[in-house]
Amino acid sequence: VAIDRPDIRGREKILQLHARQLKLSPDVKLSQVAAKTAGCVGADLANIANEAALHAARHDKMAVEMSDFDEAIDRVVAGLEKKSRVMNQQDKETVAYHEAGHALVAESRPSADKVSKISIIPRGIGALGFTQQLPTEDRYLLKYGELLDRLDVLMGGRVAEQLVYGEVSTGAQNDLQRATDIARHMVSQYGMSSLLGPVCFHDADAAFLPVSPDATRGEYSERTAQAIDEEVRNLLGEAEQRVRATLTDRRVQLDALARELLEHETVERSALLILLNQPTAPVLQVVS
Amino acid sequence: VAIDRPDIRGREKILQLHARQLKLSPDVKLSQVAAKTAGCVGADLANIANEAALHAARHDKMAVEMSDFDEAIDRVVAGLEKKSRVMNQQDKETVAYHEAGHALVAESRPSADKVSKISIIPRGIGALGFTQQLPTEDRYLLKYGELLDRLDVLMGGRVAEQLVYGEVSTGAQNDLQRATDIARHMVSQYGMSSLLGPVCFHDADAAFLPVSPDATRGEYSERTAQAIDEEVRNLLGEAEQRVRATLTDRRVQLDALARELLEHETVERSALLILLNQPTAPVLQVVS
Amino acid sequence: VAIDRPDIRGREKILQLHARQLKLSPDVKLSQVAAKTAGCVGADLANIANEAALHAARHDKMAVEMSDFDEAIDRVVAGLEKKSRVMNQQDKETVAYHEAGHALVAESRPSADKVSKISIIPRGIGALGFTQQLPTEDRYLLKYGELLDRLDVLMGGRVAEQLVYGEVSTGAQNDLQRATDIARHMVSQYGMSSLLGPVCFHDADAAFLPVSPDATRGEYSERTAQAIDEEVRNLLGEAEQRVRATLTDRRVQLDALARELLEHETVERSALLILLNQPTAPVLQVVS
Amino acid sequence: VAIDRPDIRGREKILQLHARQLKLSPDVKLSQVAAKTAGCVGADLANIANEAALHAARHDKMAVEMSDFDEAIDRVVAGLEKKSRVMNQQDKETVAYHEAGHALVAESRPSADKVSKISIIPRGIGALGFTQQLPTEDRYLLKYGELLDRLDVLMGGRVAEQLVYGEVSTGAQNDLQRATDIARHMVSQYGMSSLLGPVCFHDADAAFLPVSPDATRGEYSERTAQAIDEEVRNLLGEAEQRVRATLTDRRVQLDALARELLEHETVERSALLILLNQPTAPVLQVVS
Amino acid sequence: VAIDRPDIRGREKILQLHARQLKLSPDVKLSQVAAKTAGCVGADLANIANEAALHAARHDKMAVEMSDFDEAIDRVVAGLEKKSRVMNQQDKETVAYHEAGHALVAESRPSADKVSKISIIPRGIGALGFTQQLPTEDRYLLKYGELLDRLDVLMGGRVAEQLVYGEVSTGAQNDLQRATDIARHMVSQYGMSSLLGPVCFHDADAAFLPVSPDATRGEYSERTAQAIDEEVRNLLGEAEQRVRATLTDRRVQLDALARELLEHETVERSALLILLNQPTAPVLQVVS
Amino acid sequence: VAIDRPDIRGREKILQLHARQLKLSPDVKLSQVAAKTAGCVGADLANIANEAALHAARHDKMAVEMSDFDEAIDRVVAGLEKKSRVMNQQDKETVAYHEAGHALVAESRPSADKVSKISIIPRGIGALGFTQQLPTEDRYLLKYGELLDRLDVLMGGRVAEQLVYGEVSTGAQNDLQRATDIARHMVSQYGMSSLLGPVCFHDADAAFLPVSPDATRGEYSERTAQAIDEEVRNLLGEAEQRVRATLTDRRVQLDALARELLEHETVERSALLILLNQPTAPVLQVVS
Repeated sequence: VAIDRPDIRGREKILQLHARQLKLSPDVKLSQVAAKTAGCVGADLANIANEAALHAARHDKMAVEMSDFDEAIDRVVAGLEKKSRVMNQQDKETVAYHEAGHALVAESRPSADKVSKISIIPRGIGALGFTQQLPTEDRYLLKYGELLDRLDVLMGGRVAEQLVYGEVSTGAQNDLQRATDIARHMVSQYGMSSLLGPVCFHDADAAFLPVSPDATRGEYSERTAQAIDEEVRNLLGEAEQRVRATLTDRRVQLDALARELLEHETVERSALLILLNQPTAPVLQVVS
Repeated sequence: VAIDRPDIRGREKILQLHARQLKLSPDVKLSQVAAKTAGCVGADLANIANEAALHAARHDKMAVEMSDFDEAIDRVVAGLEKKSRVMNQQDKETVAYHEAGHALVAESRPSADKVSKISIIPRGIGALGFTQQLPTEDRYLLKYGELLDRLDVLMGGRVAEQLVYGEVSTGAQNDLQRATDIARHMVSQYGMSSLLGPVCFHDADAAFLPVSPDATRGEYSERTAQAIDEEVRNLLGEAEQRVRATLTDRRVQLDALARELLEHETVERSALLILLNQPTAPVLQVVS
Repeated sequence: VAIDRPDIRGREKILQLHARQLKLSPDVKLSQVAAKTAGCVGADLANIANEAALHAARHDKMAVEMSDFDEAIDRVVAGLEKKSRVMNQQDKETVAYHEAGHALVAESRPSADKVSKISIIPRGIGALGFTQQLPTEDRYLLKYGELLDRLDVLMGGRVAEQLVYGEVSTGAQNDLQRATDIARHMVSQYGMSSLLGPVCFHDADAAFLPVSPDATRGEYSERTAQAIDEEVRNLLGEAEQRVRATLTDRRVQLDALARELLEHETVERSALLILLNQPTAPVLQVVS
Repeated sequence: VAIDRPDIRGREKILQLHARQLKLSPDVKLSQVAAKTAGCVGADLANIANEAALHAARHDKMAVEMSDFDEAIDRVVAGLEKKSRVMNQQDKETVAYHEAGHALVAESRPSADKVSKISIIPRGIGALGFTQQLPTEDRYLLKYGELLDRLDVLMGGRVAEQLVYGEVSTGAQNDLQRATDIARHMVSQYGMSSLLGPVCFHDADAAFLPVSPDATRGEYSERTAQAIDEEVRNLLGEAEQRVRATLTDRRVQLDALARELLEHETVERSALLILLNQPTAPVLQVVS
Repeated sequence: VAIDRPDIRGREKILQLHARQLKLSPDVKLSQVAAKTAGCVGADLANIANEAALHAARHDKMAVEMSDFDEAIDRVVAGLEKKSRVMNQQDKETVAYHEAGHALVAESRPSADKVSKISIIPRGIGALGFTQQLPTEDRYLLKYGELLDRLDVLMGGRVAEQLVYGEVSTGAQNDLQRATDIARHMVSQYGMSSLLGPVCFHDADAAFLPVSPDATRGEYSERTAQAIDEEVRNLLGEAEQRVRATLTDRRVQLDALARELLEHETVERSALLILLNQPTAPVLQVVS
Repeated sequence: VAIDRPDIRGREKILQLHARQLKLSPDVKLSQVAAKTAGCVGADLANIANEAALHAARHDKMAVEMSDFDEAIDRVVAGLEKKSRVMNQQDKETVAYHEAGHALVAESRPSADKVSKISIIPRGIGALGFTQQLPTEDRYLLKYGELLDRLDVLMGGRVAEQLVYGEVSTGAQNDLQRATDIARHMVSQYGMSSLLGPVCFHDADAAFLPVSPDATRGEYSERTAQAIDEEVRNLLGEAEQRVRATLTDRRVQLDALARELLEHETVERSALLILLNQPTAPVLQVVS
């Protein structure tokens, strides 16, 4: 929950600053660039403006166009594309189902940010694919229900693999880390567990100070640690069940989206919406 | 409980020192400035005097007026205003109810400092709103009952959210931290738990020394740690229940104050008092 | 138990050394100064001699008088007076009862050092009042019963608050720390617990060495840590009960001494003794 | 799971770079060298190219041949051969059975990489023999079943010793370490335990940062630690049983392969395949 | 158990070396000096020779006499005398009984080193008295029974206090530390506990290395730590009972020796032996 | 299990290198020197060659003889002889029985290295005697049964003391440390406990890295730590029982060997073998 990064208005202003030195094509809407870069700090935006200019120059354009900015956003936000990387067909399919799972759950949860792009092109370190969500507005507060939706989206990839292959892979480790982190904060920081009650254990950020006693587990008892673990596991187990229900219902869409990804590697929001309008009759399936 | 910061008389003297270099308007009462800055140290007061002078200069005033000091106090005490920050209507409403909850509980607890100002204008880092309490006098000792009142005021925001939305948000984390810290001190430092008895575990302040054995959890047993956790949870759970009763009784005032905040963003004590004189018939309500 | 600090004869010699440079009034008895400064080291005594000389100079005296030494002892031993500090009437009364509690328990325990002065004038950091005890001679050994008496004196302030107000305040934290420290040493260092038996866990002083294994809790088991905690709590709980009985019996004296303190802020031993000769009929009282 | 090391295409390119400075024999296929060096980083490949050139020079060749590269791969991947080391006949036989066990399990698990070479010539530090597996392609994801196969291959050496001698030796320590590490990751990182559920404890890599609280055990409770230990032990115990069944079935092949290793010290894939085509009638045996 | 310090022959040779530079009186027997300095290292012996020479010079002697060496041994072994220190009569009596207890137990245990001198003159830091034991020969091994005797001698001071005053004092802390240390070594280092069995936990000396895993408690489980604590407590509790029986039997001698110490401050072995020949009829006594 | 130190062939080559500078007597067989120095590294061998040359020079020999090498091996391997050290008769006898116990168990275990020399002459730091075993060949692997034999040999000294004196001494501490270390490795590193199963906890060697999470106990649960402790204790307790049976059977030999050691201080293998051929009728004995 990064509430002190520049908001959409702030990002637009920062972009305007950097754009003064550029010749922009009339199709460039910096407000749209700002809308697509929620979470970016000043340095990221400077980087994006720079990358856009370089991209335009490399293609001998007279002015920087919106497509240059889009490419720059992709590079900066998700890392440079590594199209040269070889992945076997089996891994590709697994990644396609994994990302399709994230995307379908995101679209089925009212509070979740809408999916703007899904890709199975490996980028950066360790990322074999990605699902980009576009926040419609900056958020300062997250309510209990919204946090549950975030857990669901993170579980989408893993549950899709379980549904399709009957087993999970190592690819969900990062999703699990982030989901566990959110669940642990809900229980131990936000007072959202009725078992633990309205109590806040040490501030996770302050915990990086080396000798603060609040930075150590020692602050609370083993019994409390057990209660926290139990509640974290409950939150995550329930999220898995909710997501399993959602993706079982939407199995036809899941297969279709995975196929689409295997064929085109990248699916934009427009294509996703067309696909989601297809009927979603429940499918029979056996999962181990 | 900062008892060695300058008291009201000390603050007035420090302010007089800094005011020698300023041309003050006759309406400026440094004793009032001192009264509004309980808890400030010398550097804060120097900062306030400086900010007041700058504010007056920016408005081309011939002398520094009381309103300049008031503005300076606001800036220094609660952080610089950031009116440009965009918050969506839903978050604004949540913040309004949250601050209204703090304010109403503060007004309903005899030992709590009176509310001087409530605001939902985001300020500083992480603060989406604030409720400013004006201590009538410096305090050196806090009795058991006064500490319970402090817990209640801190719980006010969270409980207001629960009453109105049936769920809490991440916005109460800082309140919970401070309440947990007070409750833990009551149990393990001030001997205020009948279960633990008149015993004092390590001094929390000394705990920052790196190698002192008293700085580690190791001083007491797991069983004692469990007892401390239980008592802390009891203190916080009971505070939540007391506050729920208070705010359920005052639901009409809560709604009115939240509306007032959404409309004007800031409510001064004078407006608050008018609002509190409205009848407070209990309202029926269903809370999950 | 500081047994290597200079004893009374040693302190007198140190004072003689520093007094050579001063013109002393005939009323000055350095042996008396030595008697009042038990626990002081060489630097403290040098400081006292210096302060006495400065005090005499500020009052344009021809020679340093005994009263200058008394003032200097007060300053050095308990911190510089801060008469300007403002405390509200309620806090003052609480402090008065707190110090009266310490003083009455000290006077009622045969092994406790006699009270030479009680004050509710705030001094130094965190000290809102003080009860000065005058050791009649230096002590090298403390027996079990003498340590119990020390616990009682430390509990006197807290129990007085409980009797009078039905609740305790944050003001007893330092007393509790010192009492807990003594009780923990009795149990884990001096072999004075029949439950734990004649065993000595790590030397608390050596514990400040960074890597010694004896400096860590790890030396003994959780079960032993529980036993230590239990015995510490028993020692402190029993002290509280003994002190409650004493102060309930002496409630009339407690009220009288507190009143005296509120009126004069400082009560010398002579005034205390007069007050203690008043009859001490038990009073009826209700304590929560 | 090292997914950011260069893949086969990347390795070939790196090799081409280093080969520019060498005169290569026409039989050298850098694509084959790349295929045999999965897991190598740039420095390893530079080292291999250099060793191949030196080896060719030492044998007065006009150009670097494929056999030079093979020798260089052996040296770099498994350490320099130490043919001079003396091992007694009993130890040699134990090592032969140990490596034969690894190889037979690898060949009997569909997802395991194929065995390219088995050797009982001691190499490097602590390695008394080795079984080289040739990955057919780089892998980015590993599914649950594939991880189980890896555990089986690692258990192969130990179980072979148990079957043949009725006891294990210290030689399996490194295999056990690696198997334990995989099992622990399955349970605590990849959410592959139904007992623990979809939860991820701290990132093992981040754990090397000195003061991060997530780097310590303290994050989860003793009860969770017990559950993790139990699941790890179950995974390893089940692997041992599966492997015992496999090697009991293939006992004739195990004996034949061990004999072959004792005779020739090194067995290439071609020889292994001939040996595996021999009938594998189950043998009766008694194991303590 | 310091087995690599010089033995008696080694000490004599070292003393001869240092004595070459001194003019010795014919009464000086360096073999006797060596016999009285068991446990001293080279530096200590050099110090003793030097102190003896200085002492002789201060008394204008023509040669260094045996009495100068005796004085030097006293200074170096037990610290410089501080005859000027003032101790009250009550403390002196407590110390006298404490040292008498040590001495009587030492004389009643066959394996204990014989008492050469007892004193209640405070020396060095924290030592209010001392009982000097003269080892008849250097020891390299200590058997179980000999270690029990050492525990008994250490308990002698504390038990004497209990018998005479019905309570113990802080003066036994150092004895308890040493006894606990011996008992802990017996249980966890020497395999002398039948409950724990023939097992050795980490070497206490190696434990001072900062990062060795063997230096931490973590090596063994809480359950083992409990067993160690229990056995340590049993060893110490049984020693206390044995010593109580011994000193109850010898109460007349205890009183006589304490009286002798109060009168003469120091009792030499010759005086002790006369005193021990007095009849030791059991006395009736009441101990709390 | 040091497998990367030079083997017998390596040691011979190193010795040849150092011998080039020496004039060797024809009776010197460097292969025999190599055979007697298993475990030595290059520096040790250089030291031995040097010591042999010095020894020869001190005895005015024309060439370095085999006896010079034997003396040098003794010095370097077990520390310089300290014939001057005085040990009392009781300690000497204890040491004699202790070493005799080691030697007899070593001779009665098929896998144990043969005893080449037994001595009760104190050497080096803390070693009051020694039993030198001559490995017949370098070992790279140790099987379960061989490790049990090692435990037995280490227990031999302690059990001999128990049989003869009915109590153990501090002299077995180092044996217990080494036995505990082997047993702990068997259970937690080599997967040799059926209770724990085929699992490997952290590598003891890697544990010296300061911040590795694998270096801390935290990796496994308290329950696992208890299981490890139990298994370690079982392994050691069973070894003690096996050894007690062996030495009870061989009591006559034990007494004879101890007598031989007391008489000659050193017993070579030849003398040992003669002694072992004496009949070994079981003796009646009473052990506490």
